[in-house]
Amino acid sequence: MGLRLPVVNAPMGGVAGGRLATAVAAAGGLGMIGMGSAGSVEALARELAHAAGAPGPIGIGLVDWVATARPGLLELALASAPALLSVSFGTDLSWAERARAARIRTATQIFTVDDARRAHDAGIDVLVARGLEGGGHGAPELATLPLVEAVLDAVPGPVLAAGGIGSARGVTAMLAAGASGVWLGTALAACAESLLSPGGRRAMLAAEGTDTIVTRAFDVGMELPWPHRFPARVLRNDFTARWTGHERELADDARARAELSAAAAADDPRLAPVDAGQGVGLVTAVRPVSEILGELCSAS
Amino acid sequence: MGLRLPVVNAPMGGVAGGRLATAVAAAGGLGMIGMGSAGSVEALARELAHAAGAPGPIGIGLVDWVATARPGLLELALASAPALLSVSFGTDLSWAERARAARIRTATQIFTVDDARRAHDAGIDVLVARGLEGGGHGAPELATLPLVEAVLDAVPGPVLAAGGIGSARGVTAMLAAGASGVWLGTALAACAESLLSPGGRRAMLAAEGTDTIVTRAFDVGMELPWPHRFPARVLRNDFTARWTGHERELADDARARAELSAAAAADDPRLAPVDAGQGVGLVTAVRPVSEILGELCSAS
Repeated sequence: MGLRLPVVNAPMGGVAGGRLATAVAAAGGLGMIGMGSAGSVEALARELAHAAGAPGPIGIGLVDWVATARPGLLELALASAPALLSVSFGTDLSWAERARAARIRTATQIFTVDDARRAHDAGIDVLVARGLEGGGHGAPELATLPLVEAVLDAVPGPVLAAGGIGSARGVTAMLAAGASGVWLGTALAACAESLLSPGGRRAMLAAEGTDTIVTRAFDVGMELPWPHRFPARVLRNDFTARWTGHERELADDARARAELSAAAAADDPRLAPVDAGQGVGLVTAVRPVSEILGELCSAS
Repeated sequence: MGLRLPVVNAPMGGVAGGRLATAVAAAGGLGMIGMGSAGSVEALARELAHAAGAPGPIGIGLVDWVATARPGLLELALASAPALLSVSFGTDLSWAERARAARIRTATQIFTVDDARRAHDAGIDVLVARGLEGGGHGAPELATLPLVEAVLDAVPGPVLAAGGIGSARGVTAMLAAGASGVWLGTALAACAESLLSPGGRRAMLAAEGTDTIVTRAFDVGMELPWPHRFPARVLRNDFTARWTGHERELADDARARAELSAAAAADDPRLAPVDAGQGVGLVTAVRPVSEILGELCSAS
């Protein structure tokens, strides 16, 4: 794709908007606009407009169940002719045929060798091999290193490594392993150009790599229909301490859910969710994308 | 240490005996003899004798609580002047002073940046940064890639990368990240020279990377006093399916424990424990160490 840097930002819902994508593209990578569980046609149109003058390629990342619930999202994504269209967390890969017909390159996140084979057989162009240490929703099955090793052995074609890549060491390691590039989430989530809230940003800067947990508590607490295979890696907080492992009780506790909703509205990360991977300990300042990517790609 | 290959085998209890260590040393790495929960002075003496003619350096790896319970183990280990002495899974690092006084190089497994700082401050020579994807006992906290990145940033001195390294891609990746070498467990566990039982070997060859689980069930089932911080990554089987998450019930169930004991005696991996990391999917044949290491180090 003629990129100067082997970097794609993860299309983090509520975090990776048009500004972040533009900054990644300007730095020489592929900038992705993400639509997560709160994604909508209006939000995608707005973020695409923010990226309209981007000096490089812009892609779009959707969540399968969200795209199914709001079909206009996929229509708009296809109509905007992104440099890459990624749809993840589903089993029906037929969206890729529509993208191919429109000559749009496709990607999807895979978590096992079986996932990789299915995606390859469905004609997906780029496989994003995402390890369990990554932030946000994903299948907590294999860690990035053994996943990337096994996937590169099993399927031909470009593989991006994702999950736990927080420094130039990680970027260099994954390229040396044979990945075509890296898919960076946590390393960019608190950048100057992201949509992350001030509270989320503060919580990320303060966290160590061991401060994350994989949980379904927030999905249950917010009544989001994420498939059970895909819990989220988030920062531990009072809510995860109380409800992880007690999701059934939570589903019946309207008051707890209302408290969560209020905390999210108040941007209070003591209760509200903040997605973060195990590389979060290396995120210690709010910096522009150009500086972060300059450092992460300095050895590549 | 003048090694031809940047490889140390993990001192896997009941697996890495004198023959395996000798084969690793002959291939150009550092061969380790491991004493696990069943380790004893007699067993260590026997395995050291098997490695007596090794054409390269031989080290010894102990488990902290086992060494405390059987003090003769540490005495014999020190008296045998190993090329490297590793003691892991404890918090008291005073053994390292005795090793230093005897001019023996020291190593310990670390699982977080805090562990790394403590080990460095205690004067340990080599830190083994072991990610949660590794097989056998360990702290399931950080995956290898983010752990190695964070540890190399936080402490000076040699770091070996461990956990999930199953092919030349993984070895190359970890060296590119800045590790001084790799510590290989699962990749060598089913080699021709290991002590692994035929049943354990068959189970490993048949397993995929997604067939492992982290559990305390076997430690409870065998009444072994492993610290709770260090459960084990093993192959999933009927025993882990029944008892993981129900360890308290298991502690009260003498019949279930007797069945486990009988299965272990009968070498039946449907119930008995087989340690394995997430790289186990790449282990598909019983091969000599020379062949495995030739392949894993082919790109280094």
